[in-house]
Amino acid sequence: MRKSNYRLVIGNKNYSSWSMRPWLVMKTFGIPFEEIKVLLDRPDTTQKISEYSLSGRVPVLLGDDLVIWDSLAICEYLAERFPTYHLWPENVAARATARSVCAEMHSGFSQLRNAMPMNIRATFPGKGRTAGSQADIGRISEIWEDCLSTYGAHRFLFGDFSIADAFFAPVVMRFKTYGVSLAPALQAYCERIEAHPAVTQWVLGALDERDDLPKYDFP
Amino acid sequence: MRKSNYRLVIGNKNYSSWSMRPWLVMKTFGIPFEEIKVLLDRPDTTQKISEYSLSGRVPVLLGDDLVIWDSLAICEYLAERFPTYHLWPENVAARATARSVCAEMHSGFSQLRNAMPMNIRATFPGKGRTAGSQADIGRISEIWEDCLSTYGAHRFLFGDFSIADAFFAPVVMRFKTYGVSLAPALQAYCERIEAHPAVTQWVLGALDERDDLPKYDFP
Repeated sequence: MRKSNYRLVIGNKNYSSWSMRPWLVMKTFGIPFEEIKVLLDRPDTTQKISEYSLSGRVPVLLGDDLVIWDSLAICEYLAERFPTYHLWPENVAARATARSVCAEMHSGFSQLRNAMPMNIRATFPGKGRTAGSQADIGRISEIWEDCLSTYGAHRFLFGDFSIADAFFAPVVMRFKTYGVSLAPALQAYCERIEAHPAVTQWVLGALDERDDLPKYDFP
Repeated sequence: MRKSNYRLVIGNKNYSSWSMRPWLVMKTFGIPFEEIKVLLDRPDTTQKISEYSLSGRVPVLLGDDLVIWDSLAICEYLAERFPTYHLWPENVAARATARSVCAEMHSGFSQLRNAMPMNIRATFPGKGRTAGSQADIGRISEIWEDCLSTYGAHRFLFGDFSIADAFFAPVVMRFKTYGVSLAPALQAYCERIEAHPAVTQWVLGALDERDDLPKYDFP
């Protein structure tokens, strides 16, 4: 008998920002799952992912008769499946805002992603600054300030840790790696994210990986 | 007294694929709203959008105390607000798949979007074919085939018209404009989408717009 009904297929913890999001949500809210890691950019990566999903991407959540192959779709499914856990904020307006900022992260900020890929083990202070990535940093700062002051009581984005914090946690990792300077209230938010137990556990996993690939070294 | 609590801010019907999605959902499910159109790529576009949302993008749904500034976030909000309308498929596995394909559309297919921007009034047969857009067309065909045969009873993607069909309707528009050849079952699906009353109404709106901008002419 399996211990959990759920299996979450993820990529390298050091690099896979998309995998980090639902993983943090499941750990934070105590939803048990078996972790399946597929190392990215290996000759057999595509073939291995295709055993779970036709999209060719991680993360993938597998359950009884379920295959969900996107981070946001996984989070929406879990929020609906476990309504009493409040994965989204309880207040309607807060929840609508949380969904908006997660969706904006989901489809946007490509300049930041390209110029500052997640690389938890690395330290590249000052690197990756382009006009586009600076604009993305500015917009993310605006989102954080707005959420923390309107809904967050200056703790997490909407008060208690929610899907929205999980969606921006990989950005916190990037800001640390690339040495992005932030206003004190936002820096304090980053430090709360870094100290969050699920984030700490993910980061330890990233540090433990011994799969460095030269292509990820910053040029 | 206002007739509707909701206002939906959209871009040009001819070009704004993101605006089309929640607009189709609201029309299809009879959720009343006031339409506010902001013409894109005009000197005052950014300023006009900023009256409604700080993201700088359309669509935006405005309600009492609510501002939701992303197409998928709007659809999730409406699905939750009107549970008896079944904006998502009722079956759990179907709904999980529907969320996955919408999320894949939401964050992906950038090659198709770049090479074949939505332009409902235009006809550019054979244009826009790049290796990337061809791969995206292949993946979309795979998604449609899978959904129509597994869940759709060969009508809409999940049987009755759902958010997922609204998410792919702009792709149907592109396939028509750029003359993409499809297998008969998928071509029939496109024709059902084109004949859907909400889609027909949107297309008439696009044809009525007299705002052609030379920059959108295909090079």
